[in-house]
Amino acid sequence: MVRSSLSGFPELLPAERFAELSILDTLRHTFELHGFSPLETRAVETLDTLAKKGETSKEVYSLSRVNAQAGDKVDSLGLHFDLTVPFARYVVENSGHLVFPFKRYQIQKVWRGERPQEGRFREFTQADIDVVGQDTLPFHYEVELPLVMAEALAQLNVGQFLVQVNNRKVCEGFYRGLGIEDVAGTLRTIDKLDKIGAENVARVLVEEIGTTSEQAEAALRLAEIAGDDAAAIVDQVRSLGVTHHLLTEGLGELHDLLAEAQSRRPGAVRAVLKIARGLDYYTGSVYETLLVDHEDLGSVGGGGRYDSLATSGKKTYPGVGVSIGVTRLLSRLLRDAEVSRPVATTVLVAVANEEDRHRSNVIAQALRERGIPADVAPSAAKFGKQIRYADRLGIPFVWFPGDNQVKDIRSGEQLAADPITWAPPADDLYPRTTFTQGVQSS
Amino acid sequence: MVRSSLSGFPELLPAERFAELSILDTLRHTFELHGFSPLETRAVETLDTLAKKGETSKEVYSLSRVNAQAGDKVDSLGLHFDLTVPFARYVVENSGHLVFPFKRYQIQKVWRGERPQEGRFREFTQADIDVVGQDTLPFHYEVELPLVMAEALAQLNVGQFLVQVNNRKVCEGFYRGLGIEDVAGTLRTIDKLDKIGAENVARVLVEEIGTTSEQAEAALRLAEIAGDDAAAIVDQVRSLGVTHHLLTEGLGELHDLLAEAQSRRPGAVRAVLKIARGLDYYTGSVYETLLVDHEDLGSVGGGGRYDSLATSGKKTYPGVGVSIGVTRLLSRLLRDAEVSRPVATTVLVAVANEEDRHRSNVIAQALRERGIPADVAPSAAKFGKQIRYADRLGIPFVWFPGDNQVKDIRSGEQLAADPITWAPPADDLYPRTTFTQGVQSS
Repeated sequence: MVRSSLSGFPELLPAERFAELSILDTLRHTFELHGFSPLETRAVETLDTLAKKGETSKEVYSLSRVNAQAGDKVDSLGLHFDLTVPFARYVVENSGHLVFPFKRYQIQKVWRGERPQEGRFREFTQADIDVVGQDTLPFHYEVELPLVMAEALAQLNVGQFLVQVNNRKVCEGFYRGLGIEDVAGTLRTIDKLDKIGAENVARVLVEEIGTTSEQAEAALRLAEIAGDDAAAIVDQVRSLGVTHHLLTEGLGELHDLLAEAQSRRPGAVRAVLKIARGLDYYTGSVYETLLVDHEDLGSVGGGGRYDSLATSGKKTYPGVGVSIGVTRLLSRLLRDAEVSRPVATTVLVAVANEEDRHRSNVIAQALRERGIPADVAPSAAKFGKQIRYADRLGIPFVWFPGDNQVKDIRSGEQLAADPITWAPPADDLYPRTTFTQGVQSS
Repeated sequence: MVRSSLSGFPELLPAERFAELSILDTLRHTFELHGFSPLETRAVETLDTLAKKGETSKEVYSLSRVNAQAGDKVDSLGLHFDLTVPFARYVVENSGHLVFPFKRYQIQKVWRGERPQEGRFREFTQADIDVVGQDTLPFHYEVELPLVMAEALAQLNVGQFLVQVNNRKVCEGFYRGLGIEDVAGTLRTIDKLDKIGAENVARVLVEEIGTTSEQAEAALRLAEIAGDDAAAIVDQVRSLGVTHHLLTEGLGELHDLLAEAQSRRPGAVRAVLKIARGLDYYTGSVYETLLVDHEDLGSVGGGGRYDSLATSGKKTYPGVGVSIGVTRLLSRLLRDAEVSRPVATTVLVAVANEEDRHRSNVIAQALRERGIPADVAPSAAKFGKQIRYADRLGIPFVWFPGDNQVKDIRSGEQLAADPITWAPPADDLYPRTTFTQGVQSS
């Protein structure tokens, strides 16, 4: 992962790529098990589409053809910087071909021209799941999505994690109940609590957002509330004595989310009422996920409910989504990951002399036909050298074609075997990835 | 596949993406079974790196940051237009971490700013396999690669295909034996045989390349030779009466390739001596693959042997590779592909009323824990409406949680079932893709 001859564009060695594939396979499998359809969008969007989410437009890489001619029609194109903007465009374009609510997962690279730093890249892979409705979308999907994310992280065996949740209606209703007018400004300020501290948040709220010091104080007390017990969270918020219909609605939703999470996956989901998430378009539940032993890495997955992913004519598309930062996650996990070998090959078939290579080819093919990855030695060198080649690649077995003997080069054990029937132990069939960080922390 | 709101940038519907995933999974599995390690490189290269293969530089998309500041350090970057140039760069950068001969597969998108047309896109997926040696690479890999490509295409079940092979040494040795000096020019001209016809080739050879008419005639006779019988091909070339040490060497290689192919996969590989392939850097075997029922689509896979993929200091990296045009293949196969459903979900668990959604969630989770894709109905509508929702998505089973009954909505059959033990027929567990074009032609 440290290999990067171009700052911000990480590249992997083959063993590390196996580790990444194990993550991508697990995510895909988990998402498909939960009824999310696979989707990819093109890497390229028009700059107009990308500019719709103005705040990140400065990170966009735009494209031009190196040898474009003067008369060429030029599209103004850029690389997508997330998977939400392209998905919104796709849903509007293809709504007639989709069944709503439409659940999709999308695992793709995205690009941002940001300054690279720890856990932050210019090219990286995101894994998004969203459920999008046409005009309406039931609340229960806001309960489902963080649980699918939790299931995915549990399957990845990445160590202890925490899905932190909040609900925008709780914050907005609470602020409105207090008489605060600049709800967005208050949210944005509360979002800085961990960075600048309570005193500074209170000062900014009063001096810049225009709240009274009592309003600021109450907003901070709301932000202090955290826990995973549904009823206790509701009680704590109510005890602050603020009432507003939006607060009541939001508290009901937060309660139901926590209660279902507590029943289905105890300890994985926790209400943290200071979680705001920067993006203005969230309107209900919001999520932000941490690795407990790597809090410094920041959020490895987040998202929330939005009432309007896109609009088209009279139709609106409300949705709820989460996005997992695969490359960020991987960059940390690879520090202590162990991959059993950098190649799938389970058996290296030796070659006694080049004239007999065909015989070795046939043995390897017989193994492959039964799903056993097999390769043939690169040259008819001395068997010791062929075994060393296997050893350097971590290939566990070498097959000697003359008398059909197979040797476990780790133990030295050698047995007669038939390529039509022999099979390796299941654990040796395919490279295994162990994220030891995860094991240590569990 | 016709869906493309931006010319040359195709996008798929979920069912079509399942078809694409079935292709990508099969390719990956086949490549891994044969000992190729997984690799991805960044999408971005420096323009210097991309320009090393000058002939395609006009197709490059270059990148710039939309809001770059005047003082910013600017890298001159572009999107890769193939997977060979990035791989060469990667091998040189990481040679100390790789075991040679290094076998890798790489399945990624590439971008070319070309004019889009049938089977030709601006963003498309390639699947490449290469074997690269350090300083030397044995010939037998030139036999292996087309057989792996043939195995992959056979596994894809895309109908009849033909891997056409030739050997640059045969052509070059033959031309030199004839006394032709401009070997590259002759190759380039012969490559146009199908486009401009024998008469025009002969005229260009004489008038522009400077051969005699006898030399042109002999070169054309070589180009007419084709067949899959190793000995017969050698005899036909020899009967033309030209001798040269490079011709002898190339004929030996072509013979060995055909003989092994004939033994391992009869009928899949055919010598076609007019195949030249445009790229100058091939030095031995070259390959070009057609779908027999879709010759108009052009090559769906090609490649060859190159003596110098890259050089670094005193080291050179000879290799042999093939590249499969996944998007081109898919664009044609999707015309008649059938995908059983656009979502993995095998079972939709109905919801009697919203208060009981938790019960349905638990049933779905029990099914998923045994690997059965399950989803819960979007709303507690009348069961008839929930069944119609399943039907629209092609989900074969609906589960009624009240009395735990599962209904096959295709047959109407309904049975009592336990979510801890029930399993669907194996064929219903996951969406199936049938490339009917392939079946029809077999």
